[in-house]
Amino acid sequence: MAYKATWRVSFGEIDYAGIVYYPNFFDYFQRTEEAFMEHIGFPYPYLIGELKIGFPIVHVEADFKHPVRYGDSFDVNMSVAHLGTSSVTFGFRVFKGQQLCGTASITHVTVDMKTFKTIPIPSELRALFEKHVQLK
Amino acid sequence: MAYKATWRVSFGEIDYAGIVYYPNFFDYFQRTEEAFMEHIGFPYPYLIGELKIGFPIVHVEADFKHPVRYGDSFDVNMSVAHLGTSSVTFGFRVFKGQQLCGTASITHVTVDMKTFKTIPIPSELRALFEKHVQLK
Amino acid sequence: MAYKATWRVSFGEIDYAGIVYYPNFFDYFQRTEEAFMEHIGFPYPYLIGELKIGFPIVHVEADFKHPVRYGDSFDVNMSVAHLGTSSVTFGFRVFKGQQLCGTASITHVTVDMKTFKTIPIPSELRALFEKHVQLK
Amino acid sequence: MAYKATWRVSFGEIDYAGIVYYPNFFDYFQRTEEAFMEHIGFPYPYLIGELKIGFPIVHVEADFKHPVRYGDSFDVNMSVAHLGTSSVTFGFRVFKGQQLCGTASITHVTVDMKTFKTIPIPSELRALFEKHVQLK
Repeated sequence: MAYKATWRVSFGEIDYAGIVYYPNFFDYFQRTEEAFMEHIGFPYPYLIGELKIGFPIVHVEADFKHPVRYGDSFDVNMSVAHLGTSSVTFGFRVFKGQQLCGTASITHVTVDMKTFKTIPIPSELRALFEKHVQLK
Repeated sequence: MAYKATWRVSFGEIDYAGIVYYPNFFDYFQRTEEAFMEHIGFPYPYLIGELKIGFPIVHVEADFKHPVRYGDSFDVNMSVAHLGTSSVTFGFRVFKGQQLCGTASITHVTVDMKTFKTIPIPSELRALFEKHVQLK
Repeated sequence: MAYKATWRVSFGEIDYAGIVYYPNFFDYFQRTEEAFMEHIGFPYPYLIGELKIGFPIVHVEADFKHPVRYGDSFDVNMSVAHLGTSSVTFGFRVFKGQQLCGTASITHVTVDMKTFKTIPIPSELRALFEKHVQLK
Repeated sequence: MAYKATWRVSFGEIDYAGIVYYPNFFDYFQRTEEAFMEHIGFPYPYLIGELKIGFPIVHVEADFKHPVRYGDSFDVNMSVAHLGTSSVTFGFRVFKGQQLCGTASITHVTVDMKTFKTIPIPSELRALFEKHVQLK
């Protein structure tokens, strides 16, 4: 099952070429993740602030296929592409209507906030992720 | 005595109108402050990380007079405009060559990092600020 | 009549002190303006992209009274505080629940996109702004 | 031959976990590219503003190995990893002192600014890129 968030390009998010400045897509992906985590009932502030589990990104891959411009709205479809012991890879697909504009794959690891050593994903969170695993 | 930092407009910093997205000027002012604090020998990471003194902004005023575009370099002149017991107001002037593009006035307070209650500016820092007071 | 937009602090928007990096508030104000303009039926992309009318900011004042932290939601109340021939000043108030966290006043001018000379606010837009004038 | 740019983590660039908010690394890479293009004598504003050649990013891969914190300085080493007819892939390595903190590979294509169709890299620019090709 994929989760969908809809965003609109804001005034300051474009670049000199008039399209979304691409680092901002990673910000959109992050915002989508936060909305997703809230949606599944395990919000980021709980994971990081309460459980003191860090969730840094260790690998990113992205393809940008079609420009997104100022004023455009677009959907970010997000799912769990791979689930490891102490890592999870989210898959993202960006659509402007039916037009696929980009895809991304972002891998997080769960770490002890103090030591930054990897620790297993908490079992409750793992169960929630499993519901959103989607074969590509 | 004013302190001067020089910046160049980067690809993602402009807006749909082709000029610097104005919130980015506050980011430039912050970067200038950090360079200034380093320059006077009292770096931000020392103030906040070591002394655990917060330095939040309580008041901002800015006038934008002339657009700054992609590829432009500009100078930010910074000085201490007012020095209070637990507050300091920095003055900023943005120049593109001889062209004045904007001015700003930014007031910080020194606070206990935990309680966010105001505390006096440390005397060592006060002495350093005093050297950079400039009548408008 | 005030317009209200609700925002949530995102992961990358805080600073080293753990509170919203204040330049981001101006980004929130901008996003609120864009939502407001859409709400009143005169979207930014129409003003700038179609009518080729620039809408740069010439003056900003802001007071930050109470910190906003990661995970917080907050409301931005926006109204038209002053309406001139070729300028409009929007007033903003930031609330976290009942707690007033900040206020701001932001003045735009309408300009010819090519020359950056001021031109009168289009009468249709003026009429829409008038409906949202609010005495402080 | 690699090109090196040195950056310092600024106050607003970290995230709730106290490390550089990872989308900001892509902003650093972009800034490094702009410095590189200026260094080789073919600045971005010339490419895009004068020649009207767009240079969008079509593929990104990055690995983050070690956190970078507020106050840290770091080097970004950049080279040309692959040179195609209408595409160039830059390789990036992020070092904090001798500590490798991350690597990235970013592929641009040259496009006609109006149509966003790919066009060959201008021969003068190709010659300059060739000088900076570095086998991994």
